Amino acid sequence: MPRIDPARLLSDLRHLRGIGAQGPGVVRPAFSAKDMEARRWLKRRYEEAGLEATIDGVGNVFGRSRHPGKALLLGSHSDTQPTGGWLDGALGVIYALEVVRTLAADAASRAFAVDAVSFQDEESRFVGCLGSRSLIGELTPATEHGAVDRDGVALADALRSAGLSDAPRLRLSRERYAGFVEAHIEQGPHLEDSARKIGVVTGIVGVRGIRFVFRGQQNHAGTTMMARRRDAATALYELAHRINQEFPKAAEERSVWTMGRLRVEPNATSIVPGYADLDLQFRDQSDAPLDAFEAIVARLVAEMNARGGVTIEAVPSRTPIPPTRMDPGLQAHIETAAERHAPGKWQRMPSGAFHDAGIISACLPSAMLFIPSIGGISHDFAEDSRDEDIVLGCQVLADAAAAILYAANAGH
Amino acid sequence: MPRIDPARLLSDLRHLRGIGAQGPGVVRPAFSAKDMEARRWLKRRYEEAGLEATIDGVGNVFGRSRHPGKALLLGSHSDTQPTGGWLDGALGVIYALEVVRTLAADAASRAFAVDAVSFQDEESRFVGCLGSRSLIGELTPATEHGAVDRDGVALADALRSAGLSDAPRLRLSRERYAGFVEAHIEQGPHLEDSARKIGVVTGIVGVRGIRFVFRGQQNHAGTTMMARRRDAATALYELAHRINQEFPKAAEERSVWTMGRLRVEPNATSIVPGYADLDLQFRDQSDAPLDAFEAIVARLVAEMNARGGVTIEAVPSRTPIPPTRMDPGLQAHIETAAERHAPGKWQRMPSGAFHDAGIISACLPSAMLFIPSIGGISHDFAEDSRDEDIVLGCQVLADAAAAILYAANAGH
Repeated sequence: MPRIDPARLLSDLRHLRGIGAQGPGVVRPAFSAKDMEARRWLKRRYEEAGLEATIDGVGNVFGRSRHPGKALLLGSHSDTQPTGGWLDGALGVIYALEVVRTLAADAASRAFAVDAVSFQDEESRFVGCLGSRSLIGELTPATEHGAVDRDGVALADALRSAGLSDAPRLRLSRERYAGFVEAHIEQGPHLEDSARKIGVVTGIVGVRGIRFVFRGQQNHAGTTMMARRRDAATALYELAHRINQEFPKAAEERSVWTMGRLRVEPNATSIVPGYADLDLQFRDQSDAPLDAFEAIVARLVAEMNARGGVTIEAVPSRTPIPPTRMDPGLQAHIETAAERHAPGKWQRMPSGAFHDAGIISACLPSAMLFIPSIGGISHDFAEDSRDEDIVLGCQVLADAAAAILYAANAGH
Repeated sequence: MPRIDPARLLSDLRHLRGIGAQGPGVVRPAFSAKDMEARRWLKRRYEEAGLEATIDGVGNVFGRSRHPGKALLLGSHSDTQPTGGWLDGALGVIYALEVVRTLAADAASRAFAVDAVSFQDEESRFVGCLGSRSLIGELTPATEHGAVDRDGVALADALRSAGLSDAPRLRLSRERYAGFVEAHIEQGPHLEDSARKIGVVTGIVGVRGIRFVFRGQQNHAGTTMMARRRDAATALYELAHRINQEFPKAAEERSVWTMGRLRVEPNATSIVPGYADLDLQFRDQSDAPLDAFEAIVARLVAEMNARGGVTIEAVPSRTPIPPTRMDPGLQAHIETAAERHAPGKWQRMPSGAFHDAGIISACLPSAMLFIPSIGGISHDFAEDSRDEDIVLGCQVLADAAAAILYAANAGH
């Protein structure tokens, strides 16, 4: 059986943590100097592991095996949130490197082809999952052209600064691969709460968004009687509260919805607001509750608009992400490996967060493996996992990778 | 009977409008260069009208009559909102000047003492009603010391820039006056809606404020299940909506409440907010509904806090302004004059907005007269009133002033 090297794994994870470290956290947003430094370091590590390594025209670091036969693609992303945690995507990136090295040292697996990747800009500095979208040919010139970060920097300028403008862009070949497996921290509390060590991801939840725009009439808060008011904020409070009352009736076990961003104008204590807007985002692993939520929203908005006063407009605020199923065959291999190394301490679960595997699954059979997050904390400097859980997850991935490649190449 | 000079009145109003004009509006915040230019112009006009004029140490322009006997104080404020309308306080300031000139030219009234004033900073650049507070001795060193505008400029520096640091500060003598009358635009739609020309103000509404602080736990909007969330915005929506449902049960005819300023952190579509705050302001002409509103708030907050999850803290957000009654004797004189010039077309009404008369009433019998605002619009470049309504209002004030002074000096 392939045996990973825990010391080598943790050492590489800590080296990567050091590039862009700020206290316990990491600041390594896509295309920043630290991000590119990390990518160049990773490329050298891929080469040392025997891979043919390259940084492609959108910043993906890709390590291609020289071995023949059906290949397995492993990896995640090494860019971080503006104030990110140290594991997030970095965990899956270093897992991939370690599995390449582990299988190369294992007599039964050394002939298998394992490619490793660190996708670029999963965290949406410019375009969420930019790198994986580019790899499957889903990045349109229009999307790319309009992409700017929150400081107004254009993607094209970031690519130029990173020296990538003339680098070729890679495309995944469906024929080459048996599939893709992404390992990641859970970013939630379920594994920790149930004392499980491995999550086998069944699917990635779908995400939809609606932006509400409330138009009323700005007025003096002392002289405008209640009956005359067309208060945009009052309508916002009502709609938001009624959504929170109605959605549970249509929700399934893991449905979530959030109204975390809003604006009220002029946002002054003594002025009746004439304008407000509010984002509603909702997620589930199947379309049915998402459809039901949309129907509730349409009913509430129609009912409030029928009353007159403030007018409410509801428009989709993002391209919906449909729920994605992970490949059952790949899941079965991960489950077998999990049961071997953590008997009774693994579980099937959906991913509430989005991942590159949700993009790659449109092109290749894909799967994901989670390890526990301490306190469920993520996208925060405090993000962490226990060393023993990190090591266990990588061993499970190595076993699963060997089994997947064995099965895929059995007929050859 | 004293007869005002409509052309002179409108000419002076338009001259003042020109100082700081921006399109149809006026930008003349307290202590700005344009505000001080307007005050120096007004001081000259007071002198030309025979008054002993001064700009005091907080920027009040004060014109003191040289005549003996019980005096009447007339005026309002000439500072504006950051983007203000042209009439607002300017109307009452120029009315006062015109009444001084009118009575001086009227055989039956020329012996009466009429003082004129333009208060400073009614519009709260530093301290709301700074000038009138100073005149009645209610401006404390602590208030003054802590006063900064929204750009961080300290009041002391604004006074220095305006050359006022060493100017004496005036105090009103209770003995000198029969009372104070402030004329103002209504800033609301009631007079226009009911086709009335004059509002005789019965009282100025009281104002109380509560700031709610909601503390929850910031989390990932995909991986944090609904049952685990402590969403600060969800609590805000519920409390705000329930206040809007409950307050009408305790409201009187002219009670108003507003939740126009809030903050949600980090205010991002995909993050469960961990913090929010919200201002509630409520006004009425009597204390009873204000007390009832406070009781409702206390009940709702206690009920929501008892549930756990998000904690809500409710603290007074401003010094409460108690409801103020205008002086019945002064009101009666204004009503008599209104009935003479606009028979059947005047009404008694409370003021929903606060005014310097609310401050001065703590020291002198005070009254207010309103003229109609077109469309009820105020604190906006579009603020306006019809010339014929402006002229009528000043004539009513002149008649009322003469009658008040006649009555006050009858025994002497």
